Amino acid sequence: MTNLLIKNLRILDGEPTDLLIENGRIAKIAPDQEAGTTPVEDAGGHIAIPALTEAHTHLDKSLLGFPWYHNDVGGGNLMAMIDNERQMKTRLGMDPHVQSMRHALKTAGYGATLIRSHVDIDTTGGLRALEGVMETAEKLADVVEIQTVAFPQSGLMISPGTAELLDEAMAMGADLMGGLDPCGVDHDPKGHLDTIFALAEKHGKGIDIHLHERGELGAFSMEQTLDRAEALGMKGMITISHAFCLGMPDQGRVEGLLERLAALDVAIMTTAPASSPAPLVKQLQAHGIRIGSGNDGIQDTWGPYGNGDMLERVKFVGLRNNLRSDKEMYQALDICAGGGAVAMGLERRALEVGAPGDLVLVEGVAVAHAIVTHAPRKLVVKAGKVTARDGATLIEAP
Amino acid sequence: MTNLLIKNLRILDGEPTDLLIENGRIAKIAPDQEAGTTPVEDAGGHIAIPALTEAHTHLDKSLLGFPWYHNDVGGGNLMAMIDNERQMKTRLGMDPHVQSMRHALKTAGYGATLIRSHVDIDTTGGLRALEGVMETAEKLADVVEIQTVAFPQSGLMISPGTAELLDEAMAMGADLMGGLDPCGVDHDPKGHLDTIFALAEKHGKGIDIHLHERGELGAFSMEQTLDRAEALGMKGMITISHAFCLGMPDQGRVEGLLERLAALDVAIMTTAPASSPAPLVKQLQAHGIRIGSGNDGIQDTWGPYGNGDMLERVKFVGLRNNLRSDKEMYQALDICAGGGAVAMGLERRALEVGAPGDLVLVEGVAVAHAIVTHAPRKLVVKAGKVTARDGATLIEAP
Ligand SMILES: [Zn+2]
Ligand SMILES: [Zn+2]
Repeated sequence: MTNLLIKNLRILDGEPTDLLIENGRIAKIAPDQEAGTTPVEDAGGHIAIPALTEAHTHLDKSLLGFPWYHNDVGGGNLMAMIDNERQMKTRLGMDPHVQSMRHALKTAGYGATLIRSHVDIDTTGGLRALEGVMETAEKLADVVEIQTVAFPQSGLMISPGTAELLDEAMAMGADLMGGLDPCGVDHDPKGHLDTIFALAEKHGKGIDIHLHERGELGAFSMEQTLDRAEALGMKGMITISHAFCLGMPDQGRVEGLLERLAALDVAIMTTAPASSPAPLVKQLQAHGIRIGSGNDGIQDTWGPYGNGDMLERVKFVGLRNNLRSDKEMYQALDICAGGGAVAMGLERRALEVGAPGDLVLVEGVAVAHAIVTHAPRKLVVKAGKVTARDGATLIEAP
Repeated sequence: MTNLLIKNLRILDGEPTDLLIENGRIAKIAPDQEAGTTPVEDAGGHIAIPALTEAHTHLDKSLLGFPWYHNDVGGGNLMAMIDNERQMKTRLGMDPHVQSMRHALKTAGYGATLIRSHVDIDTTGGLRALEGVMETAEKLADVVEIQTVAFPQSGLMISPGTAELLDEAMAMGADLMGGLDPCGVDHDPKGHLDTIFALAEKHGKGIDIHLHERGELGAFSMEQTLDRAEALGMKGMITISHAFCLGMPDQGRVEGLLERLAALDVAIMTTAPASSPAPLVKQLQAHGIRIGSGNDGIQDTWGPYGNGDMLERVKFVGLRNNLRSDKEMYQALDICAGGGAVAMGLERRALEVGAPGDLVLVEGVAVAHAIVTHAPRKLVVKAGKVTARDGATLIEAP
């Protein structure tokens, strides 16, 4: 836990001031503070925002550092993309620890101090991906806090042996139990959900399930998930990632789902995708539902997009949800920063006394300007420790 | 018309070669060409793509160069945004010539050699915006070719006097007649469409109409537009911008509209918006419909987004349409480059002998990589003349 005085920063669009971090927490926000023996950073009038939160990604998948991957699979067929990825991981000889180090440091360099990573557990790779990402989490503990989700990317009921591996993954220390399209991928919603809820209960952990199923099918899987969460008393312990079904046209149906999600304090993670129906963030916020966002996989066999930058993701959240005013841009930012931390079940990152000393100095003449231009970050601070400067983390990636 | 030899470039993802431009057109593509007296650029192995096409923007609206605009209007109410903009233009003392110079040069610096700009014509500003943008078009003729559209942003039937101004605008030399939501904004589809078609016919010009109306309402306005185009023999002369209604769920209905659009050779301009239903580019391409794209307004009173970069817009087209493979990324690029030029009724920009000598050298190890990272352009060439280098146009903005 570190002390740091940051002189001459602007908190969001406010007037210049100084911010003191003591023992890793924000201790004082006021102009003209004297440093004494405390280390000092001069913010040069730059805007400070709370540290960013990458609440949904896959640290074991990125091809960062590899020669450019030429994609000939395209975007139409989910199972083809899943199979292609599993095969390419072996063929390319990807090392999950090295890849997750590269990816996590890139994300941290953009100002995230929290990452939730789903990690593939399947009968080809076994637990290697989880071992690699957990090694990264340990090495980078001072730079970024990483939660792991044991994720049956290649299916669970359709892939015998996976349930046992998930059990081992949870015993190894994965933070959450994962899941994936109980109908669309696994073709057995009862089997899938019974299994992941049993494992979550056994290990005393929460669940974060990928739910791409659209419309009424997704609503069915969501209800089945909520029924189990309610029966097992798992209020506040469930996350539903993507939740495309909340973007369906039948608003009465959506309203009913939102009420149940709010009552069970389920968190929703959305990438704010442009090509899919998606939860509307204002609608969720009106129900008091916790929302986080993430970049999902970046530059992997699934596609060329993504760079790990959660400030650019704020822009995508804004574009997807037609957010334009300053106030709306703050709301989009919160989803990718403090609100995302809360969605991950962690303490809110905020620029106020008592909060964790996690913040980012950004380039731009206004918060909205910083969001839409997302230039390299001036400075990233975690618990009072400088972790990145001028777009680069102080620790080099392998 | 200029000569230029570009050594050591890669055409899309091909092998390094040399490209000779003579009299403004691509004359030879082959390795190891001797320069003789022709000026030479060393591409250093960079990838060349055809020059980009900004097929839908508003050069008179951007606040580039002004202090950051703090937006408190938000995105919910179209008429409120229209009224706010018209008032702010006066209050801020915006000079349409200066603003369009700034905006056009920014766009050109990113590699566009063609721009179609809608220009506000209303009873407050009169023809000043058009005068300013036409002055810019003349000054920048060597850098970027600018088409102007006389655009009734504040409505036509609801704003008496506008029709007369549009008539004057066309007489001044606007390239196309504009239009806007005949039902949603003007509340009089017959009046609106009869007026703009009469003016287009009178001046012998085509039409480019903004159509944000969704679902069945948009389909109605589109059909009314197509009926008039058919009756007046305006095949190939109509553009429909946005055309959100083509993203409606009723695919049978959409299919019928696409068939008529194809038969009348109507071009569609889409920004590939994340927050609205939108035309699916693959569906349009399957019908042989010409498609262009654009950034629409950038950093204006409507919102903070946008920078004029049509390479980033390729990324948005890809994200909106779930394009992932290399082949799909080329298709997205074409919409923002050669295909966009064709949609504007101009000659296709392509890297082949005989085509206009308009090209861009981009940063990246592959075309898809260049698209998703959209780093500053290495070099921009129009008709054999270098117009921008390392992200900056050779002409400075006012
Ligand atoms: Zn995911
Ligand atoms: Zn427009």
